[in-house]
Amino acid sequence: MHKYLFFLFFLFSTIVLSQDFEILPLGVYGGGDESNLSSYLIRDYQNENYIACDAGTVRAGLIAAYKKGNLSKKPMELLQDNVKAYFISHSHLDHLSGMIINSPEDSPKPIYAFPQTIEVLKNHYFISDTWANFSNEGEEPILGKHHYKRIDEKKYYKVKHTNLELVGFPLSHPVPSSAVWLHNVAGNSILYLGDTGSDRIEGNGHLNKLWSTIAKNLKEGKLKAILIEVSFTNEQPENLLFGHLTPKLLVEELQQLAKYAGVKSLKNFPIIITHIKPDGDSIIQIKNELEAYNPMQVQYIFPEQGVPLQF
Amino acid sequence: MHKYLFFLFFLFSTIVLSQDFEILPLGVYGGGDESNLSSYLIRDYQNENYIACDAGTVRAGLIAAYKKGNLSKKPMELLQDNVKAYFISHSHLDHLSGMIINSPEDSPKPIYAFPQTIEVLKNHYFISDTWANFSNEGEEPILGKHHYKRIDEKKYYKVKHTNLELVGFPLSHPVPSSAVWLHNVAGNSILYLGDTGSDRIEGNGHLNKLWSTIAKNLKEGKLKAILIEVSFTNEQPENLLFGHLTPKLLVEELQQLAKYAGVKSLKNFPIIITHIKPDGDSIIQIKNELEAYNPMQVQYIFPEQGVPLQF
Repeated sequence: MHKYLFFLFFLFSTIVLSQDFEILPLGVYGGGDESNLSSYLIRDYQNENYIACDAGTVRAGLIAAYKKGNLSKKPMELLQDNVKAYFISHSHLDHLSGMIINSPEDSPKPIYAFPQTIEVLKNHYFISDTWANFSNEGEEPILGKHHYKRIDEKKYYKVKHTNLELVGFPLSHPVPSSAVWLHNVAGNSILYLGDTGSDRIEGNGHLNKLWSTIAKNLKEGKLKAILIEVSFTNEQPENLLFGHLTPKLLVEELQQLAKYAGVKSLKNFPIIITHIKPDGDSIIQIKNELEAYNPMQVQYIFPEQGVPLQF
Repeated sequence: MHKYLFFLFFLFSTIVLSQDFEILPLGVYGGGDESNLSSYLIRDYQNENYIACDAGTVRAGLIAAYKKGNLSKKPMELLQDNVKAYFISHSHLDHLSGMIINSPEDSPKPIYAFPQTIEVLKNHYFISDTWANFSNEGEEPILGKHHYKRIDEKKYYKVKHTNLELVGFPLSHPVPSSAVWLHNVAGNSILYLGDTGSDRIEGNGHLNKLWSTIAKNLKEGKLKAILIEVSFTNEQPENLLFGHLTPKLLVEELQQLAKYAGVKSLKNFPIIITHIKPDGDSIIQIKNELEAYNPMQVQYIFPEQGVPLQF
């Protein structure tokens, strides 16, 4: 009996220890439905505290997770106690409105972003005309709850209380957008991209630079998953993408990534599809298009609001 | 048998014809939960088209109504076909984010508001840094879908395709706020107030002016309902109200209204409570406080997202 229990414990430990990250999606769509806009809580599995990558829908996502039995405490307690920082990829409303609207009841947090994004937060969101200045800079009266953390390219930032450090990468979109690469102490990582156009269409090589940087970590098996957007179906004309990806354009980018990693396929590598615009039957169509042409053989994951993912 | 059918028809007609307005709440709370922020569709009962009074949560509210079997068509079709105008009471994010976020898929609409509110829409919301300019003024490129309609005090505006005309009243809040009084051709009316402090605390008599104007319509039985906010419980200190009402302060205001109407009570008059801040047990507490001390004997109605009300 003791042996049996020990075996079970060993099995359990192995499963638990093989987990490096939890991703809790608070909002997964790229527009329209205010109850489900881009936001992903990410934590190192050995630590209970998260970084929120974007913050389109916050409280409604936590409530959904709670109702599904996937939160260890009440929604606002989790936000206050365990979400230790925001990373905001860019300044469009659907990626940050939840952070603004919940700022009165939120606990103080650093807001990591590239300087251009913080400028917009300062000038248009945390101001009296549109809300109140819950940040630590800008228009008076300054309530000083959240703290702006301007990030530099290539620089790593330890995020207090989370076991994670982050580094940002610029992306191409109608406004300056960005990706964030989160590492735990073991050197394992998760990559989250905000809205992005493809390099072929945008013509500035931002994604190429990102792929070349992360390729080694991917090849070593330390990169555990990528969260990347597919906003439109393949039917969307290339001159009407407004800095977004389609299934076809994602494949082009994954081929670049494989090339940099020196591998022929990315077999079963988890690619989490974010930011689908939920109009008409586009959700189903995008899923079908991704599965129908998957030359890199990645594992596509379609996140659900309030349902955690482990990697 | 014929007689019996005729009687049923007569009864049915009487019930239907006694309806003047429908109010379809798309979002009912005053903060935090992005899936349920202030927005109320209001229509004359003889016409299928609505005015949206505020637009905090739009699509998620329409989806909720659809799931409850309370929409005659799909959510986005209803928004495109039957919502003919927005009235925006003030410029705080939780009262208009749904309008901004849904602007790409929306149909062209006039946006009625006082000039100060439109200035904020122009300078901070319909701009490239935060979204895109789907309005007809301001920063280039101007996409020109929605049209700003600056309203003047005391002036009536016919809203095309709706059978309704509106007149706005200024209210006191940290930013300029307002109420809108909607009339049908029979002279019946509904009054919707955006966020407002009480006259005693704000000291500028905005509500008094409003009550004195609508009192005659109320006394004649033509005013069918008032939508007014109660954001906080009676426990909220008066110096921390930030331009909002409590149950006690609402009663003070209703007493003023009754005085202007020359009546001792407002027995059974429908008062629809909006903008409760849903923190802790405040929803239940506010309901209890309103019912416990109701000297004007009004009928308090607590609207539910996606559930229509008739008056």
